[in-house]
Amino acid sequence: MTGSAAPDVRRPSAAPPTSGVVPPGTASAGGAAGAGPPTPGAEPLALDRAAQDLLFRAARTADAFTDEPVTDAQVTAIHGLVRYGPTALNGQPLRILLLRSAAARARLLPHVSGGNRAKTAAAPLVAVLAADVDFHERLPELFPHRPRARDWLGDRAERAAQARFNATLQIGYLVVGVRAAGLAAGPMAGFDAAGVQREFFPDGRHEVLLLMNIGRPGPDARRDRLPRLHAREVITTL
Amino acid sequence: MTGSAAPDVRRPSAAPPTSGVVPPGTASAGGAAGAGPPTPGAEPLALDRAAQDLLFRAARTADAFTDEPVTDAQVTAIHGLVRYGPTALNGQPLRILLLRSAAARARLLPHVSGGNRAKTAAAPLVAVLAADVDFHERLPELFPHRPRARDWLGDRAERAAQARFNATLQIGYLVVGVRAAGLAAGPMAGFDAAGVQREFFPDGRHEVLLLMNIGRPGPDARRDRLPRLHAREVITTL
Repeated sequence: MTGSAAPDVRRPSAAPPTSGVVPPGTASAGGAAGAGPPTPGAEPLALDRAAQDLLFRAARTADAFTDEPVTDAQVTAIHGLVRYGPTALNGQPLRILLLRSAAARARLLPHVSGGNRAKTAAAPLVAVLAADVDFHERLPELFPHRPRARDWLGDRAERAAQARFNATLQIGYLVVGVRAAGLAAGPMAGFDAAGVQREFFPDGRHEVLLLMNIGRPGPDARRDRLPRLHAREVITTL
Repeated sequence: MTGSAAPDVRRPSAAPPTSGVVPPGTASAGGAAGAGPPTPGAEPLALDRAAQDLLFRAARTADAFTDEPVTDAQVTAIHGLVRYGPTALNGQPLRILLLRSAAARARLLPHVSGGNRAKTAAAPLVAVLAADVDFHERLPELFPHRPRARDWLGDRAERAAQARFNATLQIGYLVVGVRAAGLAAGPMAGFDAAGVQREFFPDGRHEVLLLMNIGRPGPDARRDRLPRLHAREVITTL
């Protein structure tokens, strides 16, 4: 029912920071002090323009990074922000394995596809993102008003599907959080997930979902932004 | 390898807007005019505090909403922001079905679990979020520098898994976008996905992933924030 509209792909690469819905310079309701009171109805987004640019409009997936390290303080700050994103039953199944040492990086690279290997070797930080299939063990603490919630998830296959889905939502929040720290994320699906799982998660309770390079984008990190679908190609109203 | 640390669940509900990693009142690098120049190293997040609160720290999943409608202009603005979030091969498989009319809402409610039915009936707007399994048909436009990308996805089962994964990432971005509009999202997994799929997507090319109520949160929409896992329970470094 969607997807039948005529193709209408806009290319915002010509001027991404100013091609959006908010006229530049318009006062915004969610902005910092000094922006003045918002005009009701005049501003469809409450988020201020600088934040829109930082998180979405000017942010880009990076393939190359500077040598500047990503600190533990930055990672902790990113997590401290995005951990508030919602998950079903507040289950929070995402687990993050950071590869900092050369030895750890060397264990990963054989499982990464050829096209992703050099940039993964060079990135300041590489995160292996996985779902904890046994996340339900924590539900008595995380969802305390329903003490039986843990028992709802006795079926492993159903639980694994729920873990994957909610950990993936959390990866969406994490991409936003990395950008909130002024960094760029380089998510990569081109790797042997089963191999990475055997190498780093031999316990059998985790499913590896994605790799993500993280760092300050390098000067050659940006090619033209790829086209995005227009609202009328994606949204149907009944 | 994760999850073995001693339980350490912090409860930020006492003071969510100020319990984070950034000292209140600290100048932020990504903030609006007037905040002054940032102090290098003093601020782990570039995103200003007001935006952090709007999107994550003060934002909450809502179960009740005011009567204020969610306009098409708001929905278009939200989509116009979050469509820049990254997806594999720039495939953008998420499709959004908005149920505005009473007749459309009535078709949904029989498939919604009892605990979610009343709030779904009352929400200003309900979105059915689905993955387009045949998203690869658009790849020649969306990923033009690799004209063969469409052919890489000939296997339907693999393609469906990729569609689900990337559409779920996009739902993560969408939650952030709804909040960026000053609205609250109420994501719901408690429904009969197969039934909703038959009712609204009989074409067989879409997989329904989630329902989401959207609106201005009502005065009774907030219970205490549920506890979140601490970084050291979620992040392992090698």
